[in-house]
Amino acid sequence: MIIVMGKEADANNVKAVIEKIKSAGLKAFISEGEFVTIIGVVGDVTKLKKGEFERMDGVDRIVAVMKPYKQASRDFHPKNSVIEVDGVKIGGEKITIAAGPCAIESEEFLFSIAESVKKSGAEIFRASAYKPRSSPYDFQGMGEKGLKMLKKVKEETGLVVETEVMDTRNVELVAKYVDILRVGARNMQNFDLLKEVGKVSKPVILKNGISATISEFLMAAEYIMSEGNHEVILCYRGIRTHEPAVRNSMDILAIPLLKANTHLPVIVDPSHAAGNFRFIEATSRAAIAAGADGLLVEVHCNPEKAMCDGKQSLTTQKFDSLMKNLKAVAAAVDRKM
Amino acid sequence: MIIVMGKEADANNVKAVIEKIKSAGLKAFISEGEFVTIIGVVGDVTKLKKGEFERMDGVDRIVAVMKPYKQASRDFHPKNSVIEVDGVKIGGEKITIAAGPCAIESEEFLFSIAESVKKSGAEIFRASAYKPRSSPYDFQGMGEKGLKMLKKVKEETGLVVETEVMDTRNVELVAKYVDILRVGARNMQNFDLLKEVGKVSKPVILKNGISATISEFLMAAEYIMSEGNHEVILCYRGIRTHEPAVRNSMDILAIPLLKANTHLPVIVDPSHAAGNFRFIEATSRAAIAAGADGLLVEVHCNPEKAMCDGKQSLTTQKFDSLMKNLKAVAAAVDRKM
Amino acid sequence: MIIVMGKEADANNVKAVIEKIKSAGLKAFISEGEFVTIIGVVGDVTKLKKGEFERMDGVDRIVAVMKPYKQASRDFHPKNSVIEVDGVKIGGEKITIAAGPCAIESEEFLFSIAESVKKSGAEIFRASAYKPRSSPYDFQGMGEKGLKMLKKVKEETGLVVETEVMDTRNVELVAKYVDILRVGARNMQNFDLLKEVGKVSKPVILKNGISATISEFLMAAEYIMSEGNHEVILCYRGIRTHEPAVRNSMDILAIPLLKANTHLPVIVDPSHAAGNFRFIEATSRAAIAAGADGLLVEVHCNPEKAMCDGKQSLTTQKFDSLMKNLKAVAAAVDRKM
Amino acid sequence: MIIVMGKEADANNVKAVIEKIKSAGLKAFISEGEFVTIIGVVGDVTKLKKGEFERMDGVDRIVAVMKPYKQASRDFHPKNSVIEVDGVKIGGEKITIAAGPCAIESEEFLFSIAESVKKSGAEIFRASAYKPRSSPYDFQGMGEKGLKMLKKVKEETGLVVETEVMDTRNVELVAKYVDILRVGARNMQNFDLLKEVGKVSKPVILKNGISATISEFLMAAEYIMSEGNHEVILCYRGIRTHEPAVRNSMDILAIPLLKANTHLPVIVDPSHAAGNFRFIEATSRAAIAAGADGLLVEVHCNPEKAMCDGKQSLTTQKFDSLMKNLKAVAAAVDRKM
Repeated sequence: MIIVMGKEADANNVKAVIEKIKSAGLKAFISEGEFVTIIGVVGDVTKLKKGEFERMDGVDRIVAVMKPYKQASRDFHPKNSVIEVDGVKIGGEKITIAAGPCAIESEEFLFSIAESVKKSGAEIFRASAYKPRSSPYDFQGMGEKGLKMLKKVKEETGLVVETEVMDTRNVELVAKYVDILRVGARNMQNFDLLKEVGKVSKPVILKNGISATISEFLMAAEYIMSEGNHEVILCYRGIRTHEPAVRNSMDILAIPLLKANTHLPVIVDPSHAAGNFRFIEATSRAAIAAGADGLLVEVHCNPEKAMCDGKQSLTTQKFDSLMKNLKAVAAAVDRKM
Repeated sequence: MIIVMGKEADANNVKAVIEKIKSAGLKAFISEGEFVTIIGVVGDVTKLKKGEFERMDGVDRIVAVMKPYKQASRDFHPKNSVIEVDGVKIGGEKITIAAGPCAIESEEFLFSIAESVKKSGAEIFRASAYKPRSSPYDFQGMGEKGLKMLKKVKEETGLVVETEVMDTRNVELVAKYVDILRVGARNMQNFDLLKEVGKVSKPVILKNGISATISEFLMAAEYIMSEGNHEVILCYRGIRTHEPAVRNSMDILAIPLLKANTHLPVIVDPSHAAGNFRFIEATSRAAIAAGADGLLVEVHCNPEKAMCDGKQSLTTQKFDSLMKNLKAVAAAVDRKM
Repeated sequence: MIIVMGKEADANNVKAVIEKIKSAGLKAFISEGEFVTIIGVVGDVTKLKKGEFERMDGVDRIVAVMKPYKQASRDFHPKNSVIEVDGVKIGGEKITIAAGPCAIESEEFLFSIAESVKKSGAEIFRASAYKPRSSPYDFQGMGEKGLKMLKKVKEETGLVVETEVMDTRNVELVAKYVDILRVGARNMQNFDLLKEVGKVSKPVILKNGISATISEFLMAAEYIMSEGNHEVILCYRGIRTHEPAVRNSMDILAIPLLKANTHLPVIVDPSHAAGNFRFIEATSRAAIAAGADGLLVEVHCNPEKAMCDGKQSLTTQKFDSLMKNLKAVAAAVDRKM
Repeated sequence: MIIVMGKEADANNVKAVIEKIKSAGLKAFISEGEFVTIIGVVGDVTKLKKGEFERMDGVDRIVAVMKPYKQASRDFHPKNSVIEVDGVKIGGEKITIAAGPCAIESEEFLFSIAESVKKSGAEIFRASAYKPRSSPYDFQGMGEKGLKMLKKVKEETGLVVETEVMDTRNVELVAKYVDILRVGARNMQNFDLLKEVGKVSKPVILKNGISATISEFLMAAEYIMSEGNHEVILCYRGIRTHEPAVRNSMDILAIPLLKANTHLPVIVDPSHAAGNFRFIEATSRAAIAAGADGLLVEVHCNPEKAMCDGKQSLTTQKFDSLMKNLKAVAAAVDRKM
C-alpha cells in the first residue's frame, strides 16, 4: 500500500501517518520529494482499514499495490487450471464449445437442439430453467420441470449439461440435476449466491457483470473459491458502453487481460455480447483467435419461435457451419477443436 | 410497436410481416416510403415475441413504443405517491432525510450515531447488518445480531429504521426487525430478491444498479410492485462512467427524468455517488435543488474507525451543519425540511 | 512518480531501475515488501520518459503522483480566479448568466432574443456563427456575416458577446468581433486550436469533451494557459454514458471536483447536458446549488423554428421565469444573482 | 421518420402534427393505438427540422428511420471499396499492414524501423510528424522536417507512407509529402479538418473518436466524402469505457458492424486500443479473425527510448514474429497476407 501525502501536508501529518502504520505492526518507508511525500507501507496491509488513512490530515490518496484476489490470481498459481467434467476438459489445449437454447421450453425442442449441437461437435449443452428477465411479465422459465428435462438430455445424449442458478434457495436443487452451474451477469455481485455455489462440488461458469471491471470479475471468482470450490470457469459476455448499435460491447482485450491475471479457464459468450445472430461468427472467430478456451453459444432449431433471445440465437444449421469454420481459426492459434 | 423494414425488403417480406401481425389478432398500419416501409402494430403487443419479427426476411429493426413498466409509470398514476411509515412521509412536500452508518458495528456506536442524527433532524435511521463487500475477506456484517440492535434503536429513539437485505432467505427475518427494507445497487436485477420483497408489506428502498438505465431501474420497481408491494422508494446513487476521480458519476438529470416517468418517491444517496465526504454537501444541495424527495446519507461518529465506507461518511458534526445548510436550499425550491 | 515492481522481479531488476533513476539525476527511495518492491522517485520527473521504465524487466506499473497540470491547478494558485470582461465578472460572488440562441440565424431573431435575455438578467450573449454539426448536410452557420451581427448586438445592447471558434484559421477573425471565444466539446483536444486561442488576449470558454476526464479537461485548459492566455472559463456540459434517455449525463460531482482542483471559474451548460428543455430548470438549479459560477443557456424566441437544438432551447418566457427562480437558489448557497 | 405521440395527446395535437407534415410537402401515415398514436412521415424528411416536431404539444418523441450517412453507406454502394495507392490495395482480399513508430524522432531511427517492417511484410509506413499530446509540455513532433524524412523513406524503400494531420493550415503541406493522410481520434469531429482533407486527392485514414458511436464515425467519413474525397479508410482504435486496466476497450463487434453498414475498408489499430505491447498480438489476431482489412501497428526498434507510446510499441523483432503468426489466422478466414 502506498500513501500519497498532499502538497499541503506538514511534518506532523507525515509523523501521524507513520505512527499509525507502526502501531499496526507494519513498516513505513518514506520518499520525500520537493512537493509531496510518499509513504510505502510494508507488511500485511489487510490488517489496515483504508478509511483510517484516507481521512487523516494531509493524506491525498491511497494506492493499492497488491491485487485484491489471491486464489484466482496467476501470481500464486502460474499454471493454467484445467477443469474436467465427465471427460470434457475446459482450459486445456482443446477449445470447448457449450451450445443450446436460451431457455428450456419443451422436451421436444430440447432434445432436437441437443442432438443437433452434439453432432456439430459441442460437448456441453446449455439451457436455462430459470430466466432473469427484465420484465416481470415475461416468461420466467420452467423451473424444476426444466431441470429434469436437462438431466434426461444428459442421460440420453451423454452431453455435459449446465444451467443458470439465480436464487440461493435453488442452489442445492440445481446442483442435483446438472453438471455445471452458471451464475449470470446480473448476479456477478450477488455475494450470497456466490458463497452458496462456492459450497457445491460442481464447476461454476461465472459471467462478468456488464459494468464490472476485470478486477471485480476476478473478485467474484475469489468469493466462490474462498468457500472451497476452485472449479470456476470465467465467461466473458461483453460490457455495457455508449454504443447503441449492439447489445453489449465485446472488449476482446478482456481475454488476454484475464489470461495474464488468472489461471482459470476463460470462455466467451458471443450471443449475449453481440445480441444479434449476424455477428456471432465474427465474434466467435475473434474470441478463439484472442486466446479464449471455449464458447457458450445460443442455438435454437427455430429461433423465430424462441421464448427469448431469438434474435441472438443461431439456427442449428448455422451453428454447424460455424463449428466447421472455427476449426481453422483454432488451428491457426495452435489449439485443437 | 413499430417494425422498420430494411431497404432491401420486397413486397413479399412486407406481406409476411403483416400476416404474422394479423394472425396474432393485432392491426398493422403501413407507411410506405421511397426507401423504407414502416409498419405500425396496434393492439396488445405483449402477446407478441419480438424475436418473431426481428429475424424475418426484410426486417431491419423493431422500435418499442410503450414503456415496459406500468404500475411504476406516471402515465397510469399521474399523482405523486407518498409513502408513510410511522408518521414519516416520503414523497410529500417535506424533504425526508435518512442517515446513519454504513454498517452496524456495535451497539454503543449505533446509539451514539442514532441520537445524533435524530437531533440534527433525520427521520429515518440507516445501518446495514448484511454488507455486500467486493472482497470475501472483508467484514460481512453482523447479521441478525445487528438487526436486533436496530430494533432497539427504533424502540428507544422513535426513529424509523431501514436496512439492506441481500438474500431471499433473509427477507422474512429482516422484515421482522425493521420498518423499511433496502435492496442495494448490486441486487437491482436480482429478480428473485425483488419478487420476495414484493411479497412483504413494508416499504422498500430500491437503489439503481451502477450501469442500469432509468428504464431498467423502473422495471426493477415494477418487479416489486407486480407482487403486490406498491411502496417502493427509488434511491439514485449514481452510475459508473469513465471518470476515475469519483466513485460514481452523479447524473443529476436522473432526478427530473425519474420524476417525469414515475409517481414513486425519489431520494438520493450522495455518499455512494461521491465516495468522498468532501463532496457530500455539494451533491446533497444539488439533489434537493433538482427535485429529490430526500437523501440517504452515511454518517459516523468516528469515520476513521468505520469498518467500511469511512472515506465517504460524514462526521455527526458535519451532518448537523449539512442539515442546517440544506434548509435554505429546500426553501428555495418550495420544499420543507 | 512511483514504480511498482512485479511479484516476479528479482534483485537485478530492482537494481537496474534504480540505476536508471540515478543516471537521470533523480533520487530513488525503496520500500521492500514481502511480495513486491516499490520505488519512489523524487526530483524533476518530467525529465523522465514513462516508457523507459514501463518496459523494463520486472516493472509492473508506474503510478503518477503529481497532477499533470500546473497553471490550471489550485495547488499553485489557491485563490479563485475572477475573469472580468467589460465590467462583467465570472468566478466572483455573483452568478453570471450567458444566454442566447444555439446559432445565429438572422439579425431580427438575434436582436429580439438579445433584448429579451438582457431584460431577464443575462450579462453575456451567446450565439454561434460557426456550427459543429454531426451531418455535413445540416446548416453550418453564417460565418463572418454572423460575427458582424454579434458585434452589432454588443454595440446596441451593451451585452458581452461570445461565440464558438472551430478552425485555427478563424481565431483571429473571431477575436476581432467578439469579447469571449468558445471552444466546443468536440474540440477540447484539438490542440492546435487550443494553442491558437492561447495566443489571443480575450477570455476563452472551454467546454469539456463528452468522454474527457476531469484531469484531461484541466490539461486542455493548461494548453491554452501555457501559451500565455490565463483567462480560461471552464464550461461543464455533461458526459456521454450508457443512458439513452438523455443527450448527456450531467455529473454534478464535476463541479465540486473542478473547484477542488482548479482556481478557474466553472460554469455549466444545462442545455447540452439535458438535451431537452423540460430538464433545464432542474439542472440549472442543481448546478448553482453545487457551486457553479454561472450558466450558459440556450434561449430562443421561437424554438420550434430554430435551425438547431430547438428541443433543448428555452423560450424567452421560460428563461425569464428560470432567472427569477434561480435567485432563491443562489441566495441559499450565499451567492448573488 | 416516425413521430410517436404521447399518451396525453388529443385529436387536435395529432391534427396539428399532420398539418405540419403536409405543409412541408410530405405524407403522413397514422397508426392509431389504444394508448398512443404513431405517425409515419414519408418523403424527403431532410427538409424537416426535427425540432419543429419535438416541441409540439402531445409529441413524445421522434424516431429516425433512415441512416444519416449516404455516401459511406453500403445501402447505396453494396460492393466493398478497394483503395489503391502505388500498387498497395486496402480493402481487397489481401490484409494490408501499416507499421512504424508513433513519432518521427530522427532520420536514423526512422530508416532503421522502415527497413525492418518492410522486410517483415508491411506495405505502409506510419509515423507522425505532428503529435496530439495530452500535455503541452510533452514532445509535439518534428513538423515539416519530419515530413521530409518520411518522403525520403518512401523514395528509398518504396513503402507507401502515411502521417497524421491535425491542423487545417497544414493539410496542403502534409499532402505534398505523404501518400495517405491520417485524422486522429481526437479530431474525428473536427469538422473543418474533415472538410479540408475532403478536398485533397489522397486517401485518408480516419480513426474513430474514443466515445463516438459507429453511426457518428460513419458521419465523419461522410463529411470527408461530401467534399469529393471518396478514399476513406476507417481505422478502429477502440473506445473509452469504465475498465481501468486497458488504455481503451477494443469492441471487436465494431468490425462486423462497420462492414455491415459501409463499403469502406476497415482496419484496426491494436496499439492504441491495448495501450500495452503485451496484448498487441492477441488483438491483432482477433481483428483479422473478425474481418478487418488490415492493421496499423506501432513498431519501434528501441521502444524504451521512444519519445512517446513506448509502452504500446512492438519491437521490430516482435513485429516480425507477429507477421508470421498472423498469416495462419488470415488463411483461416480466407484472406491473404
